[in-house]
Amino acid sequence: MSAFDRLDEVAPLQLFPGFLARAIHGEELTLAVVEIDPDADLPEHHHANEQFGLVISGSLHFRVGDEEQELEAGETWRISSGTPHSARAGADGAVVLDVFAPPRTDWQSLATSEPQSPRWP
Amino acid sequence: MSAFDRLDEVAPLQLFPGFLARAIHGEELTLAVVEIDPDADLPEHHHANEQFGLVISGSLHFRVGDEEQELEAGETWRISSGTPHSARAGADGAVVLDVFAPPRTDWQSLATSEPQSPRWP
Repeated sequence: MSAFDRLDEVAPLQLFPGFLARAIHGEELTLAVVEIDPDADLPEHHHANEQFGLVISGSLHFRVGDEEQELEAGETWRISSGTPHSARAGADGAVVLDVFAPPRTDWQSLATSEPQSPRWP
Repeated sequence: MSAFDRLDEVAPLQLFPGFLARAIHGEELTLAVVEIDPDADLPEHHHANEQFGLVISGSLHFRVGDEEQELEAGETWRISSGTPHSARAGADGAVVLDVFAPPRTDWQSLATSEPQSPRWP
C-alpha cells in the first residue's frame, strides 16, 4: 500500500443519499473527502468515533448536540464520541473533509462505486 | 468550547520556519490547516502519532519512508506511527490539511501568534 493516494483513484462510498465519500483508513484514523448534493440531508445519527471536519467548498447547515450553525469554506466542526449530529447542504451543495478516530471500520460494509472524477479539486 | 471554529479565529502556530499551522484538538485527534511558504523545507522527523494529509492548494514534494512524490490539490499522504518523513513546498507554496491520532499534545508548548487572515480559503 502506497503512502500516497489521489482522490480520483479512490473508489467512492455512498454514506447516505446525496453523500459520496472517498476515504482512506489507517490504524488510528480515517480521512474522507465527502461530496454533498444540493439540499441533501444528513439524518441525525451518532457514533463512538470522534469526528472533526472542515468545509472545503460550498455551504451547509450543521447541528452538533444543541449547537447549530451555517458553515462555509474554512469553517470546522468537532463532534465528541456519541454526540448526535445532523446537517443539510446549501443550495449549491458542498465538499467537506471529515476525519474520524478510531477509524470507520463500519464503512467496510458499504458498497463502493467505480472510481470517478471528484467534484473537487 | 463551541463545536464550531473558523480558521481565521484560530491562533496560528509556527511548526518550522515557513510552516504555519492552525490546529484544533480533541480527545482522539488533531486537525490542522498548514500554510507553507514557497520552497520551504520540512526537515526529516518522525512521531508516534499516525498522520494523514491532503493538499488543498499549491504543491509539494513529499517523502514518507522510502517513497517520494510530487503532490498537488486532491492528493493525500499517510504516515504510520514512527515513520520518518520530510517535504519541500513548490515555488508557489502550499496549503495542506494534516490530521493526527492521537492528538499533538506536544504542540501545546509552541508559541501562538495573534489570529490573522489565513491564505485559504
